[in-house]
Amino acid sequence: MSSLLIIAHGSRRGASNDEVRQLADQVRAQPHHAYDHIGVAFLELAEPSIQEGLAALVAQGATDIVAFPYFLAAGTHVAQDIPEAIAEFSALHPQIKVRVTSHLGASAALPGAILGMAA
Amino acid sequence: MSSLLIIAHGSRRGASNDEVRQLADQVRAQPHHAYDHIGVAFLELAEPSIQEGLAALVAQGATDIVAFPYFLAAGTHVAQDIPEAIAEFSALHPQIKVRVTSHLGASAALPGAILGMAA
Repeated sequence: MSSLLIIAHGSRRGASNDEVRQLADQVRAQPHHAYDHIGVAFLELAEPSIQEGLAALVAQGATDIVAFPYFLAAGTHVAQDIPEAIAEFSALHPQIKVRVTSHLGASAALPGAILGMAA
Repeated sequence: MSSLLIIAHGSRRGASNDEVRQLADQVRAQPHHAYDHIGVAFLELAEPSIQEGLAALVAQGATDIVAFPYFLAAGTHVAQDIPEAIAEFSALHPQIKVRVTSHLGASAALPGAILGMAA
């Protein structure tokens, strides 16, 4: 079973965290995607944490997890904090395969999305 | 002349600001877009500022500017700080039409972009 975990920074502002949850709902609603489950986790300031988000997917049967950093820039959070959190999880759950993708800011689809919004 | 201004938060980390500038290069390189010029500005911590970014486009001949908040969440920066900066510019340059789009996090293209990255 393959699952996707959308990892956002997390905010003290609940509405910002809800925006991420709503985005996950929209991803779930996309046709023809390959994931049995799609979850959300937050690096800080909101719940579930990355550990909790990964564990929730495993509890739902995930054996393969794609972790997507919903971040615009490849700063310390993307380069260090998220990989460390996932390494910590993998040390405890070596049977679960977790792959981290590039961060959103590196998406080849962004330039087109930006022009689409501005049209 | 119609121009696009990509407004990012700005970071103390120069590489993060450069990511935004490179993204603007990629937007400029998209085929068939409607903009004579595409600029970048930063709300804080980096230059040019929003005022400077708007002024640079006007200096290049812009009469219509689309301002795009490159932000994931509709927090205070998107709801208040960016509109205020643009209102300040418009008060000084009433002949220039500036329209602010939704922020990136509200893009209908994001769910597909996320699935594309994670594939």
